[in-house]
Amino acid sequence: MAKRITLRSEDYSQWYLDVIAAADMAEHSPVKGCMVIKPHGYAIWEMMQKILDLKFKEIGVENAYFPLLIPQSFLSREAEHVEGFAPEVATVTHAGGKKLEEPLVIRPTSETIIYEVFSNWIHSYRDLPLLINQWANVVRWEMRTRLFLRTTEFLWQEGHTAHATHDDADAFARKMLDVYVDFAENTLAVPVIPGQKSDSERFAGALRTYCIEAMMQDGKALQFGTSHNLGQNFAEAFKVKFSDENNVEQFVWQTSWGVSTRMIGGLIMTHSDDQGLVLPPRIAAVQAVIIPLWFKDEEKATVIEKAQSLLAELTAAGVRAKVDLRDGRPGEKLFHWEKKGIPVRIEIGPKDIAAGEVVVARRDTSEKQRMAFVDVATQVAGLMETIQQNLFDRAAKHRADNTVVATNWDDFVAAIEAGKFVLAHWSGDALDEKKIKTETNATIRCIPFSEAPSEGTCVFSSKPSTQRVIFARNY
Amino acid sequence: MAKRITLRSEDYSQWYLDVIAAADMAEHSPVKGCMVIKPHGYAIWEMMQKILDLKFKEIGVENAYFPLLIPQSFLSREAEHVEGFAPEVATVTHAGGKKLEEPLVIRPTSETIIYEVFSNWIHSYRDLPLLINQWANVVRWEMRTRLFLRTTEFLWQEGHTAHATHDDADAFARKMLDVYVDFAENTLAVPVIPGQKSDSERFAGALRTYCIEAMMQDGKALQFGTSHNLGQNFAEAFKVKFSDENNVEQFVWQTSWGVSTRMIGGLIMTHSDDQGLVLPPRIAAVQAVIIPLWFKDEEKATVIEKAQSLLAELTAAGVRAKVDLRDGRPGEKLFHWEKKGIPVRIEIGPKDIAAGEVVVARRDTSEKQRMAFVDVATQVAGLMETIQQNLFDRAAKHRADNTVVATNWDDFVAAIEAGKFVLAHWSGDALDEKKIKTETNATIRCIPFSEAPSEGTCVFSSKPSTQRVIFARNY
Repeated sequence: MAKRITLRSEDYSQWYLDVIAAADMAEHSPVKGCMVIKPHGYAIWEMMQKILDLKFKEIGVENAYFPLLIPQSFLSREAEHVEGFAPEVATVTHAGGKKLEEPLVIRPTSETIIYEVFSNWIHSYRDLPLLINQWANVVRWEMRTRLFLRTTEFLWQEGHTAHATHDDADAFARKMLDVYVDFAENTLAVPVIPGQKSDSERFAGALRTYCIEAMMQDGKALQFGTSHNLGQNFAEAFKVKFSDENNVEQFVWQTSWGVSTRMIGGLIMTHSDDQGLVLPPRIAAVQAVIIPLWFKDEEKATVIEKAQSLLAELTAAGVRAKVDLRDGRPGEKLFHWEKKGIPVRIEIGPKDIAAGEVVVARRDTSEKQRMAFVDVATQVAGLMETIQQNLFDRAAKHRADNTVVATNWDDFVAAIEAGKFVLAHWSGDALDEKKIKTETNATIRCIPFSEAPSEGTCVFSSKPSTQRVIFARNY
Repeated sequence: MAKRITLRSEDYSQWYLDVIAAADMAEHSPVKGCMVIKPHGYAIWEMMQKILDLKFKEIGVENAYFPLLIPQSFLSREAEHVEGFAPEVATVTHAGGKKLEEPLVIRPTSETIIYEVFSNWIHSYRDLPLLINQWANVVRWEMRTRLFLRTTEFLWQEGHTAHATHDDADAFARKMLDVYVDFAENTLAVPVIPGQKSDSERFAGALRTYCIEAMMQDGKALQFGTSHNLGQNFAEAFKVKFSDENNVEQFVWQTSWGVSTRMIGGLIMTHSDDQGLVLPPRIAAVQAVIIPLWFKDEEKATVIEKAQSLLAELTAAGVRAKVDLRDGRPGEKLFHWEKKGIPVRIEIGPKDIAAGEVVVARRDTSEKQRMAFVDVATQVAGLMETIQQNLFDRAAKHRADNTVVATNWDDFVAAIEAGKFVLAHWSGDALDEKKIKTETNATIRCIPFSEAPSEGTCVFSSKPSTQRVIFARNY
């Protein structure tokens, strides 16, 4: 437990794992590639679920639940989809002591089973749009796994909608991407770049994939969420049809969109430091921890009593607070909550009580300040907004400082090697994209919506290009 | 959609399925034995989760997440456990395009994987009690399935705790049963009988299984939830040990406890009627629906405006309400919400507006009453409590009316045939229990805590007995 956290500058990958261990968030399980999400990690997922679920419901999306197991034949009905997912599925061949007539796969994603069901739910244009979401576990057999970022089983939400027209579906896919942008930036304090994937990075079976991409502290990109315009590809494969207002039968237009426990990995890598986890207040289940400190037994009752009264005041001020009632050495208790990333620690000892003050420590800046008892609730509530904003600003500055425009190949390679996001012209040629990846290990993270069309030539091939895209190495 | 609901008196099983279909709660999926939980059914599960989760957290239970897949060898470590579950597991033999070295089973329950992990988490008495819960899906290969009541995959929560002593563990198992009693009776309005299972109905691997049993409208019993005192059986199998205060190594004492989507089936069968679903207000995501009725287009704006203002008043009064803004024939709209079991329907048409009144219909009694606009919010809020209590009282009366004491075999058989709960003496002999089941299809539902010890003779074998137990046919 007292193991030192590796410094970011020493070994960023090991630092990431050390932060997770020190904060007691997750660990590898006895099942290869699967993780155990421990209470301090799961509490973050619960907050994510609560906030996102409310947003989905405001938009009119309803939750439902579909089977974990999918007949193998369903996967094959959409040609690109089976090609994308078949290599990584887990297959149930036996059940109830018998060999199954048709193997079942554990859902790697649920387009196929859900759209088979949708084909029975949708009859008329009056049934559209159909807006459904499910919170679920999925399994993708990954060779190289890493806690939260890439695990064989992960938790996610997958939204699935059906619309009467292409434009309605596309607008809805974009609207859900906006929900993700808002959530990433305003709740997780993670600045993201919304854009469109190149064809080679598109979801298997989609017409277009929209995504949000974030920069980690090592300059690598992490895909935070995706929203797909599926066109009519799955509708045709699963015969999802409706009668339009003229009583003409049409295939529906669909979208799917999802975020997963992977976001927790991105959250860790965006904000945490060499002392451990740093949580933005809006996603922290506990925003402020009050740590009563005593050195003699006869001091205990007084500091705990004062701590409890501060707890009541903080709760009344809308701060999610708790008191650390554990016995233990003061230094260990402070260290414990620092590693866990709680935004604010409030220390209160016998001398503080005598002075009518507490010591308030910010996790984001490590600054400490003294506050009079009467000011604590109001000031700590205010600090939550300050910390939230500071974390976002710090991450945005880091990204700005590490994003460059490259106009020639040498600059491009140097920038990628230096761990930057590189804005560069690309002609749209998939073969060039592949060669760039082979040579530099950088991929097109997205074609950003914010980037105005501009005339230029591909940084690699010099072919004419009308747009800059973002290249980076990625998780 | 307009299919008539079969009367309970005609065919109770078909009535149950018709109620689910009419309320649009769930349906069979393309995967044998698995169901699709539709939004109106899933909303009930979400309310159940929300209320139970809060209770768990108040007690100090923390949520975590463990893998879906369990190495087959884990299941075998506890002898009774493997015997109980091996016949109904689904097995993954291939993944990522390869045959696995060791097959993985999809969790039918998670004692084995969780306790393997607990063995690394627990070192000292200071780590105890460890109180963990997980919300998850599980798979048990069932031959005969029925929506909600018995499905191959179902959703549940499973709590897993470790304690320093037998008595602590037993008290905790009982405490969680009390949580379930409180939830069933005060939230779901379902009266339940708490008690202990006979050995033959015990959870595979447990020392003792506590349960709550409810009576459905056809007199059959439904097990609503269970809480197990696992003793040290799994601790020994998975080497879950701790150093006690004297630094002596000991095995922990464990509990596990769970409720599932099966409760939704029990909720339906307890309260619903020949018109469809009936939901108790506390579990209804929508407690009151305001139905604006208009017959001419020019009336629409006025009734909708008034409906919206009533909605605001109801919401302010703490009632979960919504307005039905759909076009459609008035009769169809009223029928729609009746079938869905919404506790109160508030009808408002042009004539009602002229009179300054609305028509309020109770779902539980079908009574309609007129209410002045100014009274609606307060009175409907009050009606919620009235309806909640009435549903509980009605179910309790039904159970009292259909519970008998049998002192001889002929009376026993007659009462079971008549669909009653039968309190009768039983000596504790498992073979007699089995014979009773063979002859009457009735099982011991539980040894109720409420039943004082009494001297008597077994209703079947005439062997001496010290207790009455509850026999019934069951789902």
